[in-house]
Amino acid sequence: MPTPIAILGASGYAGGELIRLVDAHPLLDAVYLGARRKAGERLGNVHPQLDGRDRILESLDVDRVVASGAALVFLALPHGASAGPGVELASRGLRVIDLGSDFRLDTPERYLTAYGTAHPHPEQLGEWAYGIPELFAEDIMAGDRVAVPGCYPTSGALALAPLVADGLIEERGIVVDSLSGVSGAGRGVSEGLQFGVIDESVKAYKVLEHRHQPEMERVLDAVGGAPAQVLFTPHLVPMQRGLLSTCYARAAWDLSPADLERSLAATYRDAPFVDLIEVPPETRWVVGSNRCLIWVGLDHRSGTVVVISAIDNLLKGAAGQAVQCANLVLGFPEETGLPTTGWMP
Amino acid sequence: MPTPIAILGASGYAGGELIRLVDAHPLLDAVYLGARRKAGERLGNVHPQLDGRDRILESLDVDRVVASGAALVFLALPHGASAGPGVELASRGLRVIDLGSDFRLDTPERYLTAYGTAHPHPEQLGEWAYGIPELFAEDIMAGDRVAVPGCYPTSGALALAPLVADGLIEERGIVVDSLSGVSGAGRGVSEGLQFGVIDESVKAYKVLEHRHQPEMERVLDAVGGAPAQVLFTPHLVPMQRGLLSTCYARAAWDLSPADLERSLAATYRDAPFVDLIEVPPETRWVVGSNRCLIWVGLDHRSGTVVVISAIDNLLKGAAGQAVQCANLVLGFPEETGLPTTGWMP
Amino acid sequence: MPTPIAILGASGYAGGELIRLVDAHPLLDAVYLGARRKAGERLGNVHPQLDGRDRILESLDVDRVVASGAALVFLALPHGASAGPGVELASRGLRVIDLGSDFRLDTPERYLTAYGTAHPHPEQLGEWAYGIPELFAEDIMAGDRVAVPGCYPTSGALALAPLVADGLIEERGIVVDSLSGVSGAGRGVSEGLQFGVIDESVKAYKVLEHRHQPEMERVLDAVGGAPAQVLFTPHLVPMQRGLLSTCYARAAWDLSPADLERSLAATYRDAPFVDLIEVPPETRWVVGSNRCLIWVGLDHRSGTVVVISAIDNLLKGAAGQAVQCANLVLGFPEETGLPTTGWMP
Amino acid sequence: MPTPIAILGASGYAGGELIRLVDAHPLLDAVYLGARRKAGERLGNVHPQLDGRDRILESLDVDRVVASGAALVFLALPHGASAGPGVELASRGLRVIDLGSDFRLDTPERYLTAYGTAHPHPEQLGEWAYGIPELFAEDIMAGDRVAVPGCYPTSGALALAPLVADGLIEERGIVVDSLSGVSGAGRGVSEGLQFGVIDESVKAYKVLEHRHQPEMERVLDAVGGAPAQVLFTPHLVPMQRGLLSTCYARAAWDLSPADLERSLAATYRDAPFVDLIEVPPETRWVVGSNRCLIWVGLDHRSGTVVVISAIDNLLKGAAGQAVQCANLVLGFPEETGLPTTGWMP
Repeated sequence: MPTPIAILGASGYAGGELIRLVDAHPLLDAVYLGARRKAGERLGNVHPQLDGRDRILESLDVDRVVASGAALVFLALPHGASAGPGVELASRGLRVIDLGSDFRLDTPERYLTAYGTAHPHPEQLGEWAYGIPELFAEDIMAGDRVAVPGCYPTSGALALAPLVADGLIEERGIVVDSLSGVSGAGRGVSEGLQFGVIDESVKAYKVLEHRHQPEMERVLDAVGGAPAQVLFTPHLVPMQRGLLSTCYARAAWDLSPADLERSLAATYRDAPFVDLIEVPPETRWVVGSNRCLIWVGLDHRSGTVVVISAIDNLLKGAAGQAVQCANLVLGFPEETGLPTTGWMP
Repeated sequence: MPTPIAILGASGYAGGELIRLVDAHPLLDAVYLGARRKAGERLGNVHPQLDGRDRILESLDVDRVVASGAALVFLALPHGASAGPGVELASRGLRVIDLGSDFRLDTPERYLTAYGTAHPHPEQLGEWAYGIPELFAEDIMAGDRVAVPGCYPTSGALALAPLVADGLIEERGIVVDSLSGVSGAGRGVSEGLQFGVIDESVKAYKVLEHRHQPEMERVLDAVGGAPAQVLFTPHLVPMQRGLLSTCYARAAWDLSPADLERSLAATYRDAPFVDLIEVPPETRWVVGSNRCLIWVGLDHRSGTVVVISAIDNLLKGAAGQAVQCANLVLGFPEETGLPTTGWMP
Repeated sequence: MPTPIAILGASGYAGGELIRLVDAHPLLDAVYLGARRKAGERLGNVHPQLDGRDRILESLDVDRVVASGAALVFLALPHGASAGPGVELASRGLRVIDLGSDFRLDTPERYLTAYGTAHPHPEQLGEWAYGIPELFAEDIMAGDRVAVPGCYPTSGALALAPLVADGLIEERGIVVDSLSGVSGAGRGVSEGLQFGVIDESVKAYKVLEHRHQPEMERVLDAVGGAPAQVLFTPHLVPMQRGLLSTCYARAAWDLSPADLERSLAATYRDAPFVDLIEVPPETRWVVGSNRCLIWVGLDHRSGTVVVISAIDNLLKGAAGQAVQCANLVLGFPEETGLPTTGWMP
Repeated sequence: MPTPIAILGASGYAGGELIRLVDAHPLLDAVYLGARRKAGERLGNVHPQLDGRDRILESLDVDRVVASGAALVFLALPHGASAGPGVELASRGLRVIDLGSDFRLDTPERYLTAYGTAHPHPEQLGEWAYGIPELFAEDIMAGDRVAVPGCYPTSGALALAPLVADGLIEERGIVVDSLSGVSGAGRGVSEGLQFGVIDESVKAYKVLEHRHQPEMERVLDAVGGAPAQVLFTPHLVPMQRGLLSTCYARAAWDLSPADLERSLAATYRDAPFVDLIEVPPETRWVVGSNRCLIWVGLDHRSGTVVVISAIDNLLKGAAGQAVQCANLVLGFPEETGLPTTGWMP
C-alpha cells in the first residue's frame, strides 16, 4: 500500500512538480494538497497541466494535515513560512521534507548572517539533514526531517564537494558563476519577472549578496573540514528551466585532469542521477529528469580547476531531490518514481 | 512479459519521444532502435536527454528488425521513406505503426494531388487505419497497420470531426489556422530553422499549399459523408513544442453554443486524453502530456463556429498518439504508459 | 527650429518608443515628458535603454504641458485616460495625437458596444481623424486631432481596406486571425504576462469579444460604404515585438490573384512604409522599422482571399504611426524621422 | 559630401548592421556592397529588414572595390579571409577597418598559439591599430588600418583595462565569464545553432580553448605592462543579441570600491558610449545602441573584484565599434551616426 503524503505549498512551480512526481510514484499517494491563497480552488485551475478536475486545494492547517493520515509532508512554502509548521508537524510524528530555506543552515549565526533575522527555532538548526542524497545519505536516512537545498547550492555542491573532500582544490577563493532559468524565482508575480523584462536579456542579480552563498559554504565546510569561502554570482537567463553552474577553484597542488575526474567519478559511482561526462553539459540534456551532469577541466597555466554542472532547477534542484530524500527517509530505493530521462527539445 | 518492439527513425525528435515513452511503458520493450545516418552511434550521443550510455543505434535493415524479434515496429521516417519498409515489415507479420505521411491518404488520386508523385504501393492506400483512436478506434483495433496522422490534422480533426459528423457545421468553407512550435519541422538542419531566423518572429508558411490540407479533408470526409473543403494556414512560432489550431466553420443552421458543446462532449465522453474546456486553451497546458484540450464558441452575428484545440505536437501529434494506437493494436487499454499530466513551466 | 512637443504617458513601451523616435527626429523636440506613477523619476531609471541621465519625468498636468510651450502632444495613456486631457489640450490650441482608444470609434453607439460605457465626450467622436496615413491622409492633414489606431486594426485595415474599397471582397464574413508579440499588451504588471506564463506557449484570448473588432469594422465601413462584419481572433505568441495578421475574406466575384495584387499595389504605390511583396512576410523583417509588408493570395477552390500583413506593433502599430500622423498634421513629409529599415536578428 | 565606403561581407549579421548604420550616417555613403556566396543577389532578399529593393550585392573582387571609388572599406569576413584583401586594399590606398580576427593579435607567436597556423602576413601584425576607441584612440587616428576586436574582448577589455592600467587588480588569475546572444556566432547554418538546440538551454563552449582568450591578454598586456593571464569561459544563451561579461580579478592591494569606481569613471569620463552605473546592467539596456554599461564591486572577504559589462554584440561588439573607428580614422567626431539609445523591449 502506498505511503500517504501531504504537500503544503501545492500552488507554486515546485508544488506542481511534486504533485506530478508523486502521482507517478508507485509507493506514494498524495492525500492532502494544501495552499495558502489558492485554498479552495480546483487543482486543475491552478495547475492546468495536471489532471486536476476532481481535486481541491486545502488550507495549510496543520491539524487538517495530521487528520489526513499523511505520514510524510513536503513543504514547498516561501522563505520563513516553513519553520513553524515544519517543527509542529515533526513534533506530531510526521516526517518532514522542507523545500524551503528555513532549515538549510547549520548554525544560528550563519542564519542571521544570511537572512538578517534570528531564527525562530534556533535549536532545530543542525537537526535537519541537508538533503543532497549523493553527499549526505546517511544523515537523511537516519532522521525524519530533511532540509532540501536550493537549486544553486545543489549544483555547486555536487560539482565541488568531492574535490574539496579529496583535498584537490583550495577551500578559499572559489567562484560559482551560475545561470538559471526563470522558474527558479518561483511563481509569484513581479515586474522583474514579466516577459517584457526577461525575454532576450540576461543579467546578474544579488551580486555579492545572494543567500545561497552561505549555504554553499555550509556544505563545503561539512565535507571539507576547513572553512570554505565562495563568491557566488547568479545570472537570470531567458528560459523556463535549467541551471548551469560554472565553478572556478584553485588546484591545491600540481594535479592533473585525471586526478579531478577520478575524484568525481568515484564519489558518484553508485549515484543513479549524477554523471561525470566528457564534454561540458547543456541544460537541455537534463531538463525533465532528476539528473545532474558534471564536467571538469584544468587550466594548466593558472592552476585553476573549472567544474561545470547542469541540473533541472525544479527537479534535481527542488521537487525531484525532495522525492529522492523522501525515498531515503521511507526506506525506498532512492530512484523510485524519479525520471532519469528528460525531454528534448 | 512486455511485447518487443522496434523503432526505425530513432534519431529524430519523434523517435526520441517514442524511446522515452516506450522505456516508461509497462507492456512494451524496445528491442531494436534503427537510424539511417546515425546508425552505429551511441543513443546517449544522439539523445543526451535519454539514458543511453549502453545502447547503440542499429541500421534500418528490415531483416535485422525481423531478427530482433520485434512484434511491432514504429516508423518515424521522413516522407517517402516509410512505404517500402512499411509494406515489407507488414508482409513479414509485424504490426506497423507509421508516423510518416506515406499511408495517411486514402486514395491514389488524393496522394498524387498532395505529394505530386504516384504512390509506390497504391493498393495499400485505404488499407491502413487512420490513427486517431478517438475517431477510428475500431479500424485501428481491427488491423495491423496504422498510419498515424500529422500533428496539424490531429488537432484539426479532433476539433472539427464531431461537429461535421453531427451535421452542425458546413463541410465547405472551413478554415484551419494553426500555430506550431518548431519541433514540428523535425530535427533536420536548415537555414529556416536557425535560432537567428525563428526566435522573436512569426510567419505563415506553405500558405494554400500545405500537404496536411488534403489530409484534413480526408478525415472530415470519412466522418461526414460529404466532401469537405478546408483552407489550412500553418504558422511557425518561436517555441519548441505545442500546437494550437483556431478553426472557423459556418454553422449548418441556427444553432446555439450548447449544441456545439454537446456534440464535442458526447464524442469525447470516454476519451482519456481529449477534454472540452470552458476557456480557450494555452498550449503550455498540454505540453508533456498526450492530451488535447478543446474550446468551442459561436459568433452569433456571422453564424461562424470557432473551435480551438491544443496539443503537444510531439506527443498527441506524433509519438504519444502512435503509442496510443499501438496499445489498441496490441489489445492494451489505450492510455497504458501515456502521460495525462504535462509539465509547467 | 524644431517644433516643441510633449509626450504624456512616457513611461510605457509606446512612450519609450515615442521618445526614441522624437529624439532622432530632425524637426521635433521633446520639451515635456509626462507620466503618472513615474512622475518625478529620472528618465534613465524608467527607460534604461534611453539616454536619460539628465531628464526627469513630469506629471500629467495639463497646465504644465501648455506652459511648456509644446505645440503638439502625444498621448500614450491607458484606455479611458485620454478623453479628458485630449479634449482640454485641443481646446487650448495644441495639436493632439492620441495613441489611446478613446477617440478611435466614430459613433457613441459603437463606443458603447465596444467598451460597455457611454463616452464622456460623445460630440467628439467622428471629429478625430483616424490615424492611418495611407488611408486617411486628407482627414489627418485637415485637422488638429488624430486618434491613432490600435496595432491590430492597423494591420487588418492595411491588408483589407483596399480590397473592400475596390469591391474585390465581401464586407461580411471576414476573419482576421492575428499573432502578436507581448509588448502589445503594454508594460503593466500582471500574472498573465509573467515570463513563466508566456514563454514557450501560445493562446488565443478575448475570443469573440476583443475591442479591436468594432474598430476594424469602423475602418472598413469608412472605405467600403457597406457595413462590414469582422470576426477577429488575437493570439499571444512568445516574442517581444511584431504582429502578423492572416485575413480571410470571400472574393466578391470570380477574380484572379492579379486583381488583388493590382488593388493593393495601386493603393500603396506612393506609400513610403507599405509594400506588397511576393512571399508571406515574417515579422522579423519589419521589427525596428515603420514598415508594413503585405502578401495576398487566392484559394481558387473556395473563392477565399487570404491577405497576410506584418508590422512592428510598437512602431507602425503605435509610436511610429503616431509620429507619421504628427508629420502630416505639422506639414512635414510623412516619412520624416521614421525608420524604413529594421534590425535583424 | 559624404565619404564613399565599401562593405565586404555584406550578407552576414555584422554586414547587415554595417549597412543599416552607414545608411543612417550623415558623413558616409555605401557605394559598394560585396559578398561571396550571395554576390549577384538583391540586398532585399538577403536582408529583408533593410530597404534593399534596388541594391545588388557585388563580388569581393578588390579591383572592383577600388574602382568603386571607396575611400574606406569595412571587412566583415570569416576568420582568415581578411588578411589577403586587407593588405591589398591598404596597399592601394584605402583605409581598412577589419571586423575579422586576422589582424587583432600583435605578434606572430600569439597568432600561432591562438589559431594554430602561421600568419600569412606576419609583418603586418602590430601595424594595425586595435580598434577600441576608448582605449586606443591615438593609435586608431594615427593610422589607416584598424583591427576591430571581437565582441568578447571588447566587453572584457572595457571592464578590466582601466583597473589593470591603474594597478588596481592583479594581471594574473583573471576570470572572464561571458554570456552571449546567438548572433555572436554569425549567420552561418549549423546544427548547433538550430532553434531546437539553442532555445530553452544554456551551455559553456570552447571551455579553456576559445580564441578570444589570447586576444584579451593582448589588450591587457598593452595597457598594463606586465603579462596578463585570463581564463575565459563563454556561454551561449537563448537570445539574439546582447553580451554580458562577469569578470573576476584579485585586488592588487587592500582597496575600496571607491578606488575601483574612480578608475573606471576617470577612464570613461569623455567616452560617449561607455558608462559606469550603480547597479549591474541588463543586456536589454544596451541592445540597439553602441553603449557599454559597466558595474564594479568588491568582495571584501576574498579580496576579489567583480566587474560586469554589457554590450550589444553586433553594435559595440562589431558593427557599431567599426563605424566608431572609421569616424576616428576619417577625422569625424567618434559618435557620428551611432545610436546612444537602444530599443526596449
